[in-house]
Amino acid sequence: MARKIKIFNDPVHGFIEIPHEAYIAYIDHPYFQRLRRIRQLGMAPMVYPGGTQTRFGHSMGAFHLTGLAMDVLKAKGAKIEAEEEAAVRKAVLLHDVGHSPYSHALEGLLIPGVNHEAITRKLIERIGADELVLQMFDGAYPRKFFRRLISGQLDMDRMDYLLRDAYYTGVREGVFGADRIIKTLVLENDVLAVEEKGVLSVEKFLVARRLMYWQVYFHKTCLAAETMLRLIFRRAREIHDGLRNCPPALAYLLALPENAPLDDKTLDVFMQTDDSDVQYALKLWRHEPDPVLSTLCQMLYARRLFKSVRVEEIGQESSYFCVYQTVSNAAYSEDEIRILTKSGEIKPFSKVSDLFSTFGQKIYKTYKIYAPDEANIVD
Amino acid sequence: MARKIKIFNDPVHGFIEIPHEAYIAYIDHPYFQRLRRIRQLGMAPMVYPGGTQTRFGHSMGAFHLTGLAMDVLKAKGAKIEAEEEAAVRKAVLLHDVGHSPYSHALEGLLIPGVNHEAITRKLIERIGADELVLQMFDGAYPRKFFRRLISGQLDMDRMDYLLRDAYYTGVREGVFGADRIIKTLVLENDVLAVEEKGVLSVEKFLVARRLMYWQVYFHKTCLAAETMLRLIFRRAREIHDGLRNCPPALAYLLALPENAPLDDKTLDVFMQTDDSDVQYALKLWRHEPDPVLSTLCQMLYARRLFKSVRVEEIGQESSYFCVYQTVSNAAYSEDEIRILTKSGEIKPFSKVSDLFSTFGQKIYKTYKIYAPDEANIVD
Amino acid sequence: MARKIKIFNDPVHGFIEIPHEAYIAYIDHPYFQRLRRIRQLGMAPMVYPGGTQTRFGHSMGAFHLTGLAMDVLKAKGAKIEAEEEAAVRKAVLLHDVGHSPYSHALEGLLIPGVNHEAITRKLIERIGADELVLQMFDGAYPRKFFRRLISGQLDMDRMDYLLRDAYYTGVREGVFGADRIIKTLVLENDVLAVEEKGVLSVEKFLVARRLMYWQVYFHKTCLAAETMLRLIFRRAREIHDGLRNCPPALAYLLALPENAPLDDKTLDVFMQTDDSDVQYALKLWRHEPDPVLSTLCQMLYARRLFKSVRVEEIGQESSYFCVYQTVSNAAYSEDEIRILTKSGEIKPFSKVSDLFSTFGQKIYKTYKIYAPDEANIVD
Amino acid sequence: MARKIKIFNDPVHGFIEIPHEAYIAYIDHPYFQRLRRIRQLGMAPMVYPGGTQTRFGHSMGAFHLTGLAMDVLKAKGAKIEAEEEAAVRKAVLLHDVGHSPYSHALEGLLIPGVNHEAITRKLIERIGADELVLQMFDGAYPRKFFRRLISGQLDMDRMDYLLRDAYYTGVREGVFGADRIIKTLVLENDVLAVEEKGVLSVEKFLVARRLMYWQVYFHKTCLAAETMLRLIFRRAREIHDGLRNCPPALAYLLALPENAPLDDKTLDVFMQTDDSDVQYALKLWRHEPDPVLSTLCQMLYARRLFKSVRVEEIGQESSYFCVYQTVSNAAYSEDEIRILTKSGEIKPFSKVSDLFSTFGQKIYKTYKIYAPDEANIVD
Repeated sequence: MARKIKIFNDPVHGFIEIPHEAYIAYIDHPYFQRLRRIRQLGMAPMVYPGGTQTRFGHSMGAFHLTGLAMDVLKAKGAKIEAEEEAAVRKAVLLHDVGHSPYSHALEGLLIPGVNHEAITRKLIERIGADELVLQMFDGAYPRKFFRRLISGQLDMDRMDYLLRDAYYTGVREGVFGADRIIKTLVLENDVLAVEEKGVLSVEKFLVARRLMYWQVYFHKTCLAAETMLRLIFRRAREIHDGLRNCPPALAYLLALPENAPLDDKTLDVFMQTDDSDVQYALKLWRHEPDPVLSTLCQMLYARRLFKSVRVEEIGQESSYFCVYQTVSNAAYSEDEIRILTKSGEIKPFSKVSDLFSTFGQKIYKTYKIYAPDEANIVD
Repeated sequence: MARKIKIFNDPVHGFIEIPHEAYIAYIDHPYFQRLRRIRQLGMAPMVYPGGTQTRFGHSMGAFHLTGLAMDVLKAKGAKIEAEEEAAVRKAVLLHDVGHSPYSHALEGLLIPGVNHEAITRKLIERIGADELVLQMFDGAYPRKFFRRLISGQLDMDRMDYLLRDAYYTGVREGVFGADRIIKTLVLENDVLAVEEKGVLSVEKFLVARRLMYWQVYFHKTCLAAETMLRLIFRRAREIHDGLRNCPPALAYLLALPENAPLDDKTLDVFMQTDDSDVQYALKLWRHEPDPVLSTLCQMLYARRLFKSVRVEEIGQESSYFCVYQTVSNAAYSEDEIRILTKSGEIKPFSKVSDLFSTFGQKIYKTYKIYAPDEANIVD
Repeated sequence: MARKIKIFNDPVHGFIEIPHEAYIAYIDHPYFQRLRRIRQLGMAPMVYPGGTQTRFGHSMGAFHLTGLAMDVLKAKGAKIEAEEEAAVRKAVLLHDVGHSPYSHALEGLLIPGVNHEAITRKLIERIGADELVLQMFDGAYPRKFFRRLISGQLDMDRMDYLLRDAYYTGVREGVFGADRIIKTLVLENDVLAVEEKGVLSVEKFLVARRLMYWQVYFHKTCLAAETMLRLIFRRAREIHDGLRNCPPALAYLLALPENAPLDDKTLDVFMQTDDSDVQYALKLWRHEPDPVLSTLCQMLYARRLFKSVRVEEIGQESSYFCVYQTVSNAAYSEDEIRILTKSGEIKPFSKVSDLFSTFGQKIYKTYKIYAPDEANIVD
Repeated sequence: MARKIKIFNDPVHGFIEIPHEAYIAYIDHPYFQRLRRIRQLGMAPMVYPGGTQTRFGHSMGAFHLTGLAMDVLKAKGAKIEAEEEAAVRKAVLLHDVGHSPYSHALEGLLIPGVNHEAITRKLIERIGADELVLQMFDGAYPRKFFRRLISGQLDMDRMDYLLRDAYYTGVREGVFGADRIIKTLVLENDVLAVEEKGVLSVEKFLVARRLMYWQVYFHKTCLAAETMLRLIFRRAREIHDGLRNCPPALAYLLALPENAPLDDKTLDVFMQTDDSDVQYALKLWRHEPDPVLSTLCQMLYARRLFKSVRVEEIGQESSYFCVYQTVSNAAYSEDEIRILTKSGEIKPFSKVSDLFSTFGQKIYKTYKIYAPDEANIVD
C-alpha cells in the first residue's frame, strides 16, 4: 500500500501535508512550480532583506490553512462534501498562479491592463480544474461562504501572507493568532462567522494587518523602488522597438498593444516569465542608449532610490523623474466579517468590536512625490 | 579578578545580566526573594494552567528592560548619570516587593485598606535604598521622565508583565514588540517620547494590552475565583476570633483593626506571608465550623467556582454568595504617551494615532453578578 | 446539540483539545486537580526562576502528544480500536497522579520506601479507570507498543517534559522536534518504530535530553537545594514526636513506620498534601528547637545553599551537614528505540545511529559532596 | 547631531545595528549589495521551498554575532583595540563577497579552478579594506584568535548560517544556542576558548550542524539538483563556442581557459553575475541544439530531477547522465575547539566532551550514483 501523502516543511506552519494525490498534480504543474521563482514581496527585500519568500510557499500555506478551516467547520457539525472541500482547497492553492514577476509591482504592466485575477482565472481553466473549482473562484457557487475563504476580509490568503511576511521580514509585530481565529470559525445557516469569543483576536488581526501595510507594504522606500521598477517598464514599453537587448519573453509582452486580448500565445509567453527575466533585463538595460531607461536602471540596480516627500494633495503631472502617488488603506472594509454572538445572532463585526466601530472603515490616504535624491545623482 | 556579574536565564528575555554588584544585594534580600513564592497572576492559573510565573521573574524582567531603555536613551545622546541609572533600575526592581500573596486578588485585605504601593514604599526604605531611589519611586525627582519608566502608560513594568503573562498563559496574541518600542524611545528636552516611526508599535502594544485584560485578567472565571478568595478572607476577618486553625502570620493580620497603622511589627509579619500560607489556610478552613467559610473554601479548593451573569447595572447588595461586581478598563488613559514627530514636535499619542484618537480613552465597564453555579452545589 | 469539547490553552503545544467527555471526568477529579499545586521541577526554580510549571500542565501535554501519536499511527494504517486509544490516553493522563509534593525531591520520603508509580497505580484504580487502562499502565496488555508510549525511551511523558521544562526554564537548547519524531512513528508488526528518516531527530532528542539532565535536573545548585530538602524531611521523621508545629497531613505521614503498608487512610492523607504543605512547614520549622532541623530550614528558606565539591569516589558516611551523593545518567539506555529502515527491517537505534553506536549506553556518574558553604553560615 | 547608526531588521537576530559609519560604506558597496541577489542555499529551495535566504542577510548576521563576541570578550577583560574590532568585523562582513551565483553549487565552475575564498581575498583588497582586515582574513595577524572567529570550528559564519538556514527552511531542529555559546567565549592567554559550562551547548551545536548537513545540505534531492546544475555548466563550457544564446557575462566566463589567471577583467565580469544570469540561462538553454545541454536544462527547469542510488563504492566513470559522487562530513574536525576548564586549563574539546570523544572526528562518507529517474524521461 504505497501512500502518496507528501509533506512539505514550512517555516511558518510546520509540516504541510498534502492529503490527496489529486492536489499533487496541481502542485507539480509548471504553472504552479513557476511560483517558486516569483518573490512574494517584489522590491520589499530592498528594505527588509529577509523578505525573500516566494508565492509558492505562500500558496502552500494558504492551502494548508484552508484545510484547517475545513476541519474546524466539519467538527462543529457543518455539512461539507468531500468534493466541495477539494474544490475550495484547489481554488486557494491556485489563487496566485496569474501573478507577474515581482508580484504587485508589475501588475498590469506586462500584459497591459489585465490584472492577475483575470490571468489566474484563465490558468485555472488551462490546468484542467473542474467546474466546481472555477465556480468557487468566481464566487458563483451557491454556498457563498466558500468564496469568503478564498477572498474576503478574513480569507486564508490574507491570513497566510500576513503571518508569512511578518516571519520573513522579521517584523514580528505582524504576528497574530491565525490558529485561534480559525478555531473560532463557525457556519451558521451557511454563513461563515467568527464566534464572539474570537472578537479580540480579529481586532488583533486587523491591527497586525494595518501595521504590515504601513510598515512593510507601503514603506516609503519599498514604494520608491517599486515606483522606479514601474517607470522602467513603462519606458521600456514606449521604446520597445528601439531596445538593443531584451529577454525575448519580455520583448513579446512589451510589444503588445494597449487593449490586446488575453490570447493563448500571450498567456504562454507570460508563463515563461519570472523574476529572473526582470532582474536580468534591469542589468542589461543599464547600457541602453535611451537615457531615461538606462539612468533608471542604473539607479535601481545600485540601490540609489528615489526619495519621497509627503504632500497634502496631488497637483501636477508625473514625469519619469517626479512621480505623484497616493496610497490608501482602510483598516477594515465594507465586506463585513460576521460574528456569531453568545446569544446566537449574527452581527457585523463593526457592531461588536468597540475598537473598530468608530474607526475601521475610514480610508487612510497618503500623498507622496517620488523623485531622485540629490545625493543619488552621481554623474 | 573575580567578576561578580550574575546571569539569570529568563524564558522571556533570554539572559538577564546583573551588571553591578550593587543590584545583587537587592536581589538577595529576603524581601525580594519572597517574590519567588508569589505568583504573578493570583488565581488565573485556574483558567490558564500555564500561568504560574512569579513576581520574582517579572521584577527581574522589568529591571532588564529598564537597562535596555537606559542604553537606548544614552546612545541617542541623553545625559544620564550613573547614579540616576542605578536608581531607576533599583526602583523598578523593587516596585513589587509590597505585594500580597496572590497579588492583586488579596490587595488591601491582609493589611486592611493599605495598597501594595504604600507597602512597597516602606520596604524600599527598609532595604536601605538611597534617597534617589525613593525620590524616583515617589515621582519627586525633578527629572520626571524617570518616573514614567517606573509607572506610566508605557512603563517597563507593563511591558514586562504583558509579554510575560502572554508567554506563560500561552495567549500568544498578547505579544507585541517591546524591543522595538524601546528602540524608539527618545528624550526630548527631558521629556520621554516615542519617535513617530514607533506609533504603530505603540498601537499594537495597546491592543495587546486590551486583549490581555479582557482575555486573561478579566476572564470571567478568573474573576470568579478571585471573588471567592476575597470573600473567604473577608469572612475570615469577621470571625477571626473563632477560627480553630489559622497560620499564625495570617492570624495576626486578620486581627488588625480596620484603620491600623502600617507599623513595623505588621510589616514584619506581612513579609512572612506568601502564597503557601493562603493555599494552606484554604485547605485548613474547609473544616472550620463556620458554614460560610468552610463552604467557600471547599468550593474554591475543588474548583467548583461561582458562575457569572452579565447584567446591565448593579442594583442590589452583595452577600457571601451573590456578589455584584464591575470591572472597567480604558484601552488608553489620560496620562498620555508622547510622540516625537518627524518635524520635531512633541504631540500626545492620541493626536498622532488614527486608531486611538477616536477610541482610546473610553472606559469599558462590565457589570456582573457572581453566584454559585447550581451544578456546583453538591450536598 | 451541546458540544462538550473543552479546549485548554497550553503555552507549549498551543490548544489542547479534550475530544471526549470521558476524559473531562478524569481531569476534573480531585486527584488530577491536585497536580495544579505540585511544581514539575521541585527546587529547580531556585536556579531557574522561570521553571514554575506544574505536573498538571505536563500531564495535559503528554495526553495531547499521545493523541497526536495515535492520529499518525492510524493514518499509516495501524488498526487501533477506539477503546485502546482512550485507554492509552487515560493512562498517560494519569501517569503522574501519585507524585509527592516537590515531585522527585521528596520521592519515597513522605510514604517511606514507596515510589510514585506504585502510588499512581493505586490511584488509577480509585479514580475508577477501567481494566484496559490498568493493563496498559502495567504493561500487561498484549499489544506491548502501548506501554512504550506511556513509559520508554521515547514515551510521550519524556517528550512533553523535556519540551516543557526547556520552555519554562528558558534553556532553549533543550528544544527538539517532538512533532517531527511523532510524524515518523510507525507500527510494524505491532512493534512501535521510528522511520529511518527520523534517526537524526531522535539523535537530537537524546542530545537535548542529555543537555537538560546536566544543565537543569542535575544542576549542582538544584541538587544542593533538593539534598537539603531531603535532609529536612529525614530529620523531621526522626524527631516527629517532638515537633512543636507541623501541618497535620505531614504529621500523619512522618509518623508512618518504615515498612508501613500503603493503606487507604495513608493514601487519603497523602492526597491532601501538595507543595504548600512543604513550603509552609519549612517556614514553621525554622523555629523548631531541634538545631539540625531549624538550621537546615533557615538556610534553605533564605537560599543559603550547600556548596558542592566534585570528588573522585565516595568514601565516607554522610551526615546532616555533609552529604555524599552520586548522580548518573546514560544518554541512552538498554530499552532500545526501534528504527524501521528504508529496506523494511526493524533495527535497534544504536545500530543505525553513528553518533550513539559508540556512545549512548555508557553511564556517566558524578560523585559529589554537599556541605554548607562557609559564607552561608551566619551565626 | 545627525546619527548615522543604521538598523536592519533581521528575522533571525532581531535588530542588527551598524554601530559605525565605516561599516556602512562596505555594506553599500556594489560587491556587497550583489549578495542580495545570491541565494544562500543554491538549489535547496527545490526541496525546502522556504529556504530562499540570501548571502546578504547571512553576512549581516555573521557581522552581528562578531560584534556580540567582541562585547563578551571585552567584558571579561580581554584587551581588544578598536581597530582590531573593526577589522575582524569587516573581515567577517566581507567573507562571502567572492561567492558564485548559486553559491557552492557553481563553485569553481564559472572561473575554473578558483575557489570563492581566493576571489573574496581579491575583492576585499579592491573594496579598499585596510591591511589589518586582510591580515585577519589571511590568518597572518599575530593574534591568531581573530582568525578563529572568521573561520574555524566555532566561527561566526557557521553560527549564523546554521541558525539562518534552520529558520528559513523550517528545519527547526537545526536551532542551537548561539547566544549561549557566545556568552561563554573567553580569551585565555590570547587563546579563544569556551568556558567549561558551555560544553553541552557546543555538543548541541555540533549535533545541530550534523543534522543540517545530512538533512539539508546533503539531502539527496538537493544534491541531485546541484549535480544537474554542475553538469549543465560543464557542458556549456565544453560547447561554449556553439551556444546560440548566452548572457554575455556568462559567455565571457565560459570561454576562460582552464588555468586562466584571476585578472581584473575576469573579476569585473564575475561581479556582474548573480543568480538571475543562471536562472535566465537555464531557461534559454532549454532550446539549444545540443541535446545534452537542452535535455539537462529542460529536466532541471521542470523539476524532473535525477534519482540517487546509494552504492558501496565508486567504480565507474561518470557521464552526463550517470554521475558518481561522494559526500562526506565529519561531525567535528581536527581544528579543535578549546575549552577553558573550571581548574583553569585549556583542553581540546574532544578531551572534555564525553559525546564527541569517541565519535566526532570520524568522517562519514556516502557514495551515490545520480541518474535520471525513468519516470522523468518524457520524450
